[in-house]
Amino acid sequence: MTSFSHLSHLECARCATTVDAGVAHGLCDCGAPLLSRYDLDAVRATVSPTDLADRAASLWRYHELLPVSAPESVVSLGEGLTPLLALPRLGTHLGLPRLLMKDEGGLPTGTFKARGAATGVSRAKELGIDAIAMPTNGNAGAAWAAYCARAGLRCHIAMPAQAPEITKRECTGFGADLRIVDGLIGDAGAAVAAMVSAGGWFDAGTLKEPYRLEGKKTMGYEIAEQLGWRVPDVIIYPTGGGVGIIGIHKALLELQALGWIGDKLPRLVAVQAAGCAPIVRAFEAGARSSEPWADAHTVAFGITVPHALGDFLVLQAIYHTGGCAIAVSDDELLAASADAARLEGTFICPEGGATVAAARLLREQGWLAESDEVVLLNTGSGLKYPETLAGQDVRDAVRSRTSA
Amino acid sequence: MTSFSHLSHLECARCATTVDAGVAHGLCDCGAPLLSRYDLDAVRATVSPTDLADRAASLWRYHELLPVSAPESVVSLGEGLTPLLALPRLGTHLGLPRLLMKDEGGLPTGTFKARGAATGVSRAKELGIDAIAMPTNGNAGAAWAAYCARAGLRCHIAMPAQAPEITKRECTGFGADLRIVDGLIGDAGAAVAAMVSAGGWFDAGTLKEPYRLEGKKTMGYEIAEQLGWRVPDVIIYPTGGGVGIIGIHKALLELQALGWIGDKLPRLVAVQAAGCAPIVRAFEAGARSSEPWADAHTVAFGITVPHALGDFLVLQAIYHTGGCAIAVSDDELLAASADAARLEGTFICPEGGATVAAARLLREQGWLAESDEVVLLNTGSGLKYPETLAGQDVRDAVRSRTSA
Repeated sequence: MTSFSHLSHLECARCATTVDAGVAHGLCDCGAPLLSRYDLDAVRATVSPTDLADRAASLWRYHELLPVSAPESVVSLGEGLTPLLALPRLGTHLGLPRLLMKDEGGLPTGTFKARGAATGVSRAKELGIDAIAMPTNGNAGAAWAAYCARAGLRCHIAMPAQAPEITKRECTGFGADLRIVDGLIGDAGAAVAAMVSAGGWFDAGTLKEPYRLEGKKTMGYEIAEQLGWRVPDVIIYPTGGGVGIIGIHKALLELQALGWIGDKLPRLVAVQAAGCAPIVRAFEAGARSSEPWADAHTVAFGITVPHALGDFLVLQAIYHTGGCAIAVSDDELLAASADAARLEGTFICPEGGATVAAARLLREQGWLAESDEVVLLNTGSGLKYPETLAGQDVRDAVRSRTSA
Repeated sequence: MTSFSHLSHLECARCATTVDAGVAHGLCDCGAPLLSRYDLDAVRATVSPTDLADRAASLWRYHELLPVSAPESVVSLGEGLTPLLALPRLGTHLGLPRLLMKDEGGLPTGTFKARGAATGVSRAKELGIDAIAMPTNGNAGAAWAAYCARAGLRCHIAMPAQAPEITKRECTGFGADLRIVDGLIGDAGAAVAAMVSAGGWFDAGTLKEPYRLEGKKTMGYEIAEQLGWRVPDVIIYPTGGGVGIIGIHKALLELQALGWIGDKLPRLVAVQAAGCAPIVRAFEAGARSSEPWADAHTVAFGITVPHALGDFLVLQAIYHTGGCAIAVSDDELLAASADAARLEGTFICPEGGATVAAARLLREQGWLAESDEVVLLNTGSGLKYPETLAGQDVRDAVRSRTSA
């Protein structure tokens, strides 16, 4: 009988301690995240890239490499296999004719957070958890609230007051218990810690449990599959908590171990906002971990993470692939979002705009060559930021027109 | 050599006059829409449902049955193959255990309008058109503006002042020329007529050109394919201009002619808002066409269409399939949207909420049986309606909570 999942065990990302994956775990005793490990020999023996071609258009097409043990445990809103779009007009504009965008804006709740929520909630339910709690900058909370509603789990969300209004409405609309916190995501995390110990809920914060990462890594599988089981030269990723870039790196290492892609890895680039760039500062110092960023602020609210639990894994992914970390200003990322809309018809989020701005800077600096095939990771839809994007001066322009 | 498209000619939906599909056409001389006709024998001889299984996850998988003649003419943002979700919890709530939702919220620009814009803009560009104009209630304009940006076509949009704010920002962000009109979509249509004759632009209004319909019909192909090449008992569709229900009907007739589905057709249901229900009034009178609706108003702004050009085709689809037309109040459709969010984690638009409300009423009336397999067509994401949905009282509730 073929297994739906070939999950084998969990392994600490720092101290390499292994634990049983069959029961719910938070962090390793050493305080670092636990990573899901698979029986890759069994995967290789039972499935090939060709077998995947006619599977359903969702991230569950990679189920052997995901942690959920049975199809009936899958909690799905139809997530995954987002478009990988060629951007010829924007690429010409930036001097990068082979520019591509992995566009996550069409996922349930409008962001890539749906991937981690799908696997995280599915696995939580499978392991018997009935209530989760988490801090969020907005989009992760909305996604987890949606999947908890779908699964019938209770969901407790703590969110900074400054988070996008629409994400608050999603959480409460999905029936979650929403707590508004004065402060940033770290303060929300502290609130959750108190809630968790008082309520007996499961802490599903970023990298606090192993399975959100497994959903996020499917971005890496999809990019490779959509390119015909090869990788691009560079992937540029907007980095807050960093689960996506950690996940893409993990995915590509798994595909290498399976022999599904060759030896080459893409250079992984972490983009941050100039107002909150702890990973960039660490990278520039050649450090293995980051220091907390003081007075963090950026319109790209999703990446306002002053101190990421997985900072060392983000930096590992960068160093291991010969990538880099770069900061862009709010003005640069907003202008870049506008360029993407005008030239390609893509309405991307501010965090996605940061990747466009980074591509421009890296090309100007010569870090990117004209011949490089570059994938931008747009993590969500501009529709989630009605007050930020494509609006300010446009609104006046529209109103000043006379009726036709 | 196999043809990418088996488009054969255009045929008037009313007088059956045929015209050459190789040049740009608006309406038939008799004033009715032109429909795309295909060489179905050639399609049957060259492709089978099995052949489609491993094609890319977009509506272009049906390219033989679409009007664009070559792959290089395709203007795409990665549209199509949206999820067909089982809704077990909402279904139980409504007494319809086999309830499904075709969820169009993840398409580019967040609504099903992307389908028609993809085929319409692709074909317009292929036929040498360089500027289009259209009236819209918002979402179609946003979608056409996006695809025009992607294609490099100029785009002129006329929109009622009351249309959702976000759709105006999308249009201008995509570089379209936006005109705000005092009045409803009919008034915007009159404005476009003046613009078209003054500017030499192509009128891409609802059913004014043949190819938007061809994109919309792919909802019908996808539902059949996702059910394993069979049809459900009922499809419930929120009806404004009606292109979607006309397209689904056309698609199913084409699949029958190909022998890809059996003799049974789903009963097609047109839902309208009680504040703008010309099709419902016509259906209740047994009429073949509708009368203009006075004082139209509903929060489901996308279906505020007092007099649809394709009204007779909507009614044909209903009568031919043994369907019906039904009106729901704004309170009912908003409450139904909230039910869908709370019970299934789906954040649907007010128009989608109308289908949930209609399912409830039709079940209560006995028109739907508990055993019926019912597909709701959610035409877009609730994210496009931040002021309408999941918000009003929620906003206060959130603010009144103390920080955790």
